[in-house]
Formats: sequence, C-alpha cells, structure tokens
Amino acid sequence: MKRLLDSQLIRALARGCAVLGAGGGGDPYLGLLQALQAIEDFGPVPLVDLDEIPGDSLVMPCGGIGAPTVFIEKIGNGDEGERLREHLEYATGRKVVALMASEIGGSNGLMPVAWAARMGLPLVDADSMGRAFPEVHQATMHLAGIPASPAVMTDERGNVVVFHTISGHWMERLQRTAAVEFGGAAASTEFTLTAGQARAPGVTVRNSVSMAIRIGTAVADVNGSPIDALIAAIDGNRLITGKIVDVDRRTTSGFARGSVVIEGLGADAGRLVRLELQNENLVAMERGRVLASVPDLISVLDSETADAITTERIAYGQRVTVIAFGCDPVWRTERGITATGPRSFGYDFDYVPVEELAGAGD
Amino acid sequence: MKRLLDSQLIRALARGCAVLGAGGGGDPYLGLLQALQAIEDFGPVPLVDLDEIPGDSLVMPCGGIGAPTVFIEKIGNGDEGERLREHLEYATGRKVVALMASEIGGSNGLMPVAWAARMGLPLVDADSMGRAFPEVHQATMHLAGIPASPAVMTDERGNVVVFHTISGHWMERLQRTAAVEFGGAAASTEFTLTAGQARAPGVTVRNSVSMAIRIGTAVADVNGSPIDALIAAIDGNRLITGKIVDVDRRTTSGFARGSVVIEGLGADAGRLVRLELQNENLVAMERGRVLASVPDLISVLDSETADAITTERIAYGQRVTVIAFGCDPVWRTERGITATGPRSFGYDFDYVPVEELAGAGD
Repeated sequence: MKRLLDSQLIRALARGCAVLGAGGGGDPYLGLLQALQAIEDFGPVPLVDLDEIPGDSLVMPCGGIGAPTVFIEKIGNGDEGERLREHLEYATGRKVVALMASEIGGSNGLMPVAWAARMGLPLVDADSMGRAFPEVHQATMHLAGIPASPAVMTDERGNVVVFHTISGHWMERLQRTAAVEFGGAAASTEFTLTAGQARAPGVTVRNSVSMAIRIGTAVADVNGSPIDALIAAIDGNRLITGKIVDVDRRTTSGFARGSVVIEGLGADAGRLVRLELQNENLVAMERGRVLASVPDLISVLDSETADAITTERIAYGQRVTVIAFGCDPVWRTERGITATGPRSFGYDFDYVPVEELAGAGD
Repeated sequence: MKRLLDSQLIRALARGCAVLGAGGGGDPYLGLLQALQAIEDFGPVPLVDLDEIPGDSLVMPCGGIGAPTVFIEKIGNGDEGERLREHLEYATGRKVVALMASEIGGSNGLMPVAWAARMGLPLVDADSMGRAFPEVHQATMHLAGIPASPAVMTDERGNVVVFHTISGHWMERLQRTAAVEFGGAAASTEFTLTAGQARAPGVTVRNSVSMAIRIGTAVADVNGSPIDALIAAIDGNRLITGKIVDVDRRTTSGFARGSVVIEGLGADAGRLVRLELQNENLVAMERGRVLASVPDLISVLDSETADAITTERIAYGQRVTVIAFGCDPVWRTERGITATGPRSFGYDFDYVPVEELAGAGD
C-alpha cells in the first residue's frame, strides 16, 4: 500500500483533481463530499500501486458519464459502484480486486474513492487519461488496443445497461444516448483490464492519484501566491489573468458545450482570450492565434485561491487566471493526437505542444 | 409438434401476419424472404404448443424494435437471433429451448421463424400481443407482472446491449433510444419466461401462429372476393372502401408516426375516413366520430387482393378497404386498456369495442 486515503488527503486530492480536470470531470466538490462521507462511514481507502496487486487481478475503471452541468443537480445514490462491480463481474466471470478512476480530473477522480470505501476495495494509483476528456474512447486503454467491452452503466434509480460493442466509437454512441435518456448523467465502467495489462507502458497513466494529491498539497501549504505555487508545481504556462466577460454554455447531446471569453486585467489589460469547451476546455485562442489546445490541459483558476473552476461553474465576473500545461506523453503520440487532438474535436488545425506555443508567443 | 413450418405454410403465415399487424410489425415481405431462405438453408421449423415443452424450459420472445419505415431499408444480418440467445442465456444462466414471436403482426411474426431455423429450435404457437403494438411494455407478460428484464438488443453489425431496468417504462425508454442510435431499428428480446409461466391464462396469446396461418389460407384459397373471405375469417367490420388521398408520415424518436386519409369510392362515395398511426394504425375516425381504436385492430387491405398494407407502404392513390376487428380479450381488461387503450397513446376518449362502435354507426 502506498498510503491510506483519509479525509486530509482526499481534500488535497479534490483540489488536484479540479486542476487536472481541465474544466471537466464534474464539480469535484460533489465528489469530495461523497468521498468524505464514505470514508467516515466505511473507513479510509488504501491507495495501491499497480505493482502491488497480482497481474491477473481485475481492475475496474469507473466514473461518471454525461454532462457536468447535469451532475451538479443530479446527484448519485451512492451504490452505483457496487452495481457496476456486480454486473461487470457477472459479464466477465471474474472478480474485481481494485478500482481505478477512468479519469483523474474533476469529480471523477473522487467518485471511485467513495465507491471503493463502500466496497472495501483499494484504489490504484493510476487512471486512463491523466486529466479528463469528454468521450468514452479517449482513454489510454483505447490507444493500447484494449476493448471497451463489456461496459456497464447504471443510474441512481437502479437501472443497469451492459454494452458489448464492436468498437470504441460505438461504445461512445450507445453509452452517450443511454446517459442522455437517464437524464444527462450516469455512472459507468469500461475498458476493464487486469493489473498486468494496466502495468504495461502506455496502457494507463501511472501515479496520477499521487500527482493530484501533490498538486492539491502544493497549493494548500503555500505562503505566497497560490497561483504561482500551482504553476511551479505543474510546470504550467499562464495564458491570461482577467475577468470572465462572456459565457455561452448549453447542455446538448449529453455534453456541456460552449465558449467563454476572458478580458485581461492589470498587465493583461486589453487582451481577450476565448476558451471553447465540450465538458472540458478544448482550446484557448487570442485574435485567431491558438494559445493551447487538447490534449494539453487548459484550466481556469480563481485568481485569489488558485481553485480550479469547472466549465459548468464558470460565470460572468469571476476573476480568473487561465493556465495551460502539458498532457501525459501518451497523448502526444500519433495515435494519441488522432484520438484527442484538435482535429478529433472538429478543429481545422494541428496540435502544437503548449510549451512550443508559449515560446512562439514571446 | 403441431406442424412443420415449410415454405407453403410460411407464405400463408406471412399473409396472416400482415393482417394481424394492424399496419405495424414491419413489412412481412422482408420477414417472409428471410424465413424462406432460412428454412431452405436449415430445414423447416417445428411449430409446437406450449403444452408440449417442459414447464421449466426457457422461451425467448423476440422480434424487431424500431420504426418500420427504417426496417424496409435496413435489413437484418440474419444472425441477430443467435446473438440474442447467446446473451440471454448468459444473463439468465439458463438454456433457451424455443423461440416465440414477441408480436405476431407483420415481419415480427416471421423473423423468429428465420432465427429458429438457423438455431434448430422450435417456435411456440403463441405471442405476447395477438397483433402488433408499438411499445415494448405493450405485451401480455407485462400485464401478468413478468419483468421485461433481462432484455437483450443487437444490431446487424454485432453490437449487443443488455438491459436490466426497474420497470417496463424504463425498458421502453432505454431500448427505444438504443434502437434510434442503431439507426432506427434493431432486434431484441424481453420478457423472457418459462413455458410454465407462458401457459398460465392471459400470460401469452395462445395459438396466434395458427391463427395467422388460418387467415392467410382463407384468403389464398378463396374463389370469390378475398376481402369478403378475410372479413368472414376474422369476424371483421368493413370501415370504408376507397382510395388513399392523403398520407402524412414521418420517422421520429424511433417510431413511424402520422395520419392517412381514405376517400370513399362506390357505395362509400363522399365519405372521408382518417387513420392515425404510430407504427400501427391506432385510431380510425370519420367526422370526429371514432370508428375503431386500439387495442382493437385496424388493417388497411388492398381492395383487389386483400393483402394488408403496412403503414410504411401506404401511398397516395392505393385502392384500399379498411377493416377493424376485435383484439384478444386480455387487452379488454382494465389493465389491458390502461396499457394499450386510446388514452395510453394520448387520446382523450375511452375505449369502446369495435363491434359496439359498428352497431352504433348503423
């Protein structure tokens, strides 16, 4: 066991998950409350390394699916994780020995902690994105050729749907429509794999839970500017400091989509930066120039506290600092860029790493 | 075994299924072609009575789900039945020993013959409607309290979805959205039951395959008017003989919906009858007076041949005779009317049996 996730670590984890969510993954405050309640009721959750568990053990990647704008009003029941496990074990004929966050970003980095506490299972120190992405197949296991099937989805009422699809693309289509029918949000597991598979290079993003805790701790313990401490902790680039002056956001087809405009303040006065979003912040642009784009992470931080603000919580007038930082190297491979780069979201430009873009703008 | 379904009987079955479809269940010509091919390749299908098979044997009700307007362009692959059986057996942990048509109406009365031939399984002489209905929970098993779960749906590509829902209502919602995502049509099984359950009064509509064959044979062997022979065979009421003068039909939310207007010819000159449809013909009206409504059957027949014309094949100019006849008594119970009467489709009037309406109009 690497460490025991108690309430203090979970609070740090929540701050880190918010930053790694790149605006998405759902409001971590809701996941935090559920994780804190679960460990109070059932005890803390062991965080384990993938190397610590037998190679043939089944790991269940899990989290929420749907629009984060819906998740803030449509809260889980708490027993979703147990239903996912029950039906996944039946579908695979094997026992789940540990949970893994499908995505470390946002509330989805915390829900598996709450579910693991209730089941008395450990959480592995890994996820399949190192951030949050909007679509089901945007997972490291997809790049590694691990099938998304069988996948299980459940809602807070107790409905369960099991999917066996011919491709990750069909998994995204069928899960998305089911999530919409459930009211816009549900819980799911897909890309189930063994610990042995998960340990292979590039199949998962290792140590991402620890990374989120480290980020959250760095900001919490600082004496000076939390923003500066955060940027130092993640080797981030400050894109703009300013005020939200426009928010265009709608919930459609199971996603939150829209755009946000930030007007610079202080040293950035006169600048206007536009973010485009699909659950997560996808692209940051200024006068037609791309400042950062997926798969790199773009996070909007409260300028005072450095708390990350998820896309569904962004509102006119907020004083924010927008940062961008590099994604896990797996997303910068050819397959990674195909699955999650700007063109995969319909943009007509190529991906350029954020550190190169930052250099070009100087 | 009651009889062996060979090509001659299947042709009669197809004519009967068309009439019992009340406009729905999909074009029986497509089901006929698939059933004929399957029995040519794999041999004829035994038609068995529910009393002939062991009470604890599992019966798989099955058919197509979606909009018949889509089925005429999106043909099955042929192996859908095998996938349904494989996943249903896995989900229930039991073996399927016979197939049953979920609905005897339209192509859905014939697809289970094609699937049974491929699997070497018998078909039971029963269904769960005695006609065709548009929605999943409009089945006799639903009235009898048999759960729709686990249900399995598959498409021609090989995708499979397994549903465990908390109600028949949720089954309809989730299956419908999945069918829409598959392109508007899919194959499915729900309300799986044992032969013992299926034999209990009101749980299934018994002998409906035989009835369809009898109807088809009555029309085929006639010397005089096929329409008269058909009306005599089913104790039907002629509503109007005329010409289709208006068709308003659209495919939406997984259904074909719309209305059709028939202008009377000959003795019916000057009359206008309007049919409203949701996959099936729901209501026949004349100057605001209801001539017939669900759950009774309204079928549109070619005035020359007495071939029933399904709702997706109705076209301007066709010379037709519209008939109506009584549904299975199970649908005239309070629960039956609640599930399938006019109010269940949003109409603001009570169900009156077609024979009473016919008397009132004289």
